[in-house]
Amino acid sequence: MSPTQRRVRIDLAYDGTDFAGWQVQPGARTVQGVLCAALSRIQGGGAVGVRGAGRTDAGVHARGQVADAAIVTRLDDAGLLRSLASILPWDVRPLALRTVSPDFHSRFQALAKTYRYRLDRSPTGDPFLARHALFHPHALDHAALADALGRLPGRRDWSGFAGAACASADRVRCLTEASYEEPDARTGWFTFSADGFLNHMVRNLVGTLLEVARGSFAPERIEEILARGERGLAGPTAPARGLYLERVVYSGEAV
Amino acid sequence: MSPTQRRVRIDLAYDGTDFAGWQVQPGARTVQGVLCAALSRIQGGGAVGVRGAGRTDAGVHARGQVADAAIVTRLDDAGLLRSLASILPWDVRPLALRTVSPDFHSRFQALAKTYRYRLDRSPTGDPFLARHALFHPHALDHAALADALGRLPGRRDWSGFAGAACASADRVRCLTEASYEEPDARTGWFTFSADGFLNHMVRNLVGTLLEVARGSFAPERIEEILARGERGLAGPTAPARGLYLERVVYSGEAV
Repeated sequence: MSPTQRRVRIDLAYDGTDFAGWQVQPGARTVQGVLCAALSRIQGGGAVGVRGAGRTDAGVHARGQVADAAIVTRLDDAGLLRSLASILPWDVRPLALRTVSPDFHSRFQALAKTYRYRLDRSPTGDPFLARHALFHPHALDHAALADALGRLPGRRDWSGFAGAACASADRVRCLTEASYEEPDARTGWFTFSADGFLNHMVRNLVGTLLEVARGSFAPERIEEILARGERGLAGPTAPARGLYLERVVYSGEAV
Repeated sequence: MSPTQRRVRIDLAYDGTDFAGWQVQPGARTVQGVLCAALSRIQGGGAVGVRGAGRTDAGVHARGQVADAAIVTRLDDAGLLRSLASILPWDVRPLALRTVSPDFHSRFQALAKTYRYRLDRSPTGDPFLARHALFHPHALDHAALADALGRLPGRRDWSGFAGAACASADRVRCLTEASYEEPDARTGWFTFSADGFLNHMVRNLVGTLLEVARGSFAPERIEEILARGERGLAGPTAPARGLYLERVVYSGEAV
């Protein structure tokens, strides 16, 4: 009996440094492209469509991206995970794989996502974090930063923090978490959770929050940017290399 | 008054991935070469000789390498550190710099060194450690490994663990520490301290210990290798990417 097509959910981690982002683009190395090619090879030819929860930009990393694909193979889930792990390159690693309902959709059914942004707070730069964090040894005004972060959560129009390439007509999202912590003197982590994010939104938030933390913007600036929806009022876009798609949340039924 | 030459000690961290090792070689990118060039630029021209405590191989990392150099500059130690940090590339970072006695010699006066070797124990490989650890998810026989490690410390001839390129006539070294720990389920660290190490010694020790841990060698094999001094009895040379020069120890007077 020949195997029938089934849908699998694949949890992934990747180092985004050498990728032109998630989404397939002609002539560019992308995470989606590398995954499609690996699954097609396992299937023995024929296209395999792969969907991802978050369409991360060039250089952005993931520790908990979720993808789904419909594949025809005799391998069981454990065998498919092993096969995928052996075919995929060192910078994209499958963390888990399991068969899901045929109507599972990693993007449309995602209830929430968490992104984190890493700062390298060491005095002269940690060479082992150069691809994976923003080197930012400067003094931070923690009170001002906490004040600004406290003004972010809520259901709002985020146009003021959207990138120029943002194609979303509806820019209302519900942000449930905005925090910054330093687990040790060399490391800073921003964390943002929401039901969805606009293009460049996290990097624009981080760029703006770092302006607040260095005293260039007052914490109240956050509300002005939100109210007026003008990207020009916000800070610069923080570099991709510090950003991680950390986690995607689904309802119990969807997975 | 023109500045006089002074000797400085420079503590360094580097990601060895894109270096052909520590030592200057024509046509190759080396840590020593990059440091010499940076210091010569700060001096305003003229060669600056740089010596290092450990001549790490291609691909080997450092978190606590110590170098020394004689330089002519008006900059004080803090200014020189800042200048060096701004000139050096992202994969070699100066951690500290200070003026030392003119007869300080980072290599000859080193009393001991510690090397560490990192294993990535995650099930399918951590993409953020691919350049910085050996992916080794296989089961380890911890009792056999501890047994083998316990047989290592002491003042011995290490010929059986020396690389073919080892130029040392005297191969007696005193190993004071040989340990393995897993701070979490995804990470393994070997640690070795000695008054000196032979070429490839740590990587050959790790390659041999992993053979013991997987059951291919009995722990007693360690003593046979040491007693007979035959490299052919030991395991393979573990890859450079897991190895770190962690620390160099000097007497209080020397620094």
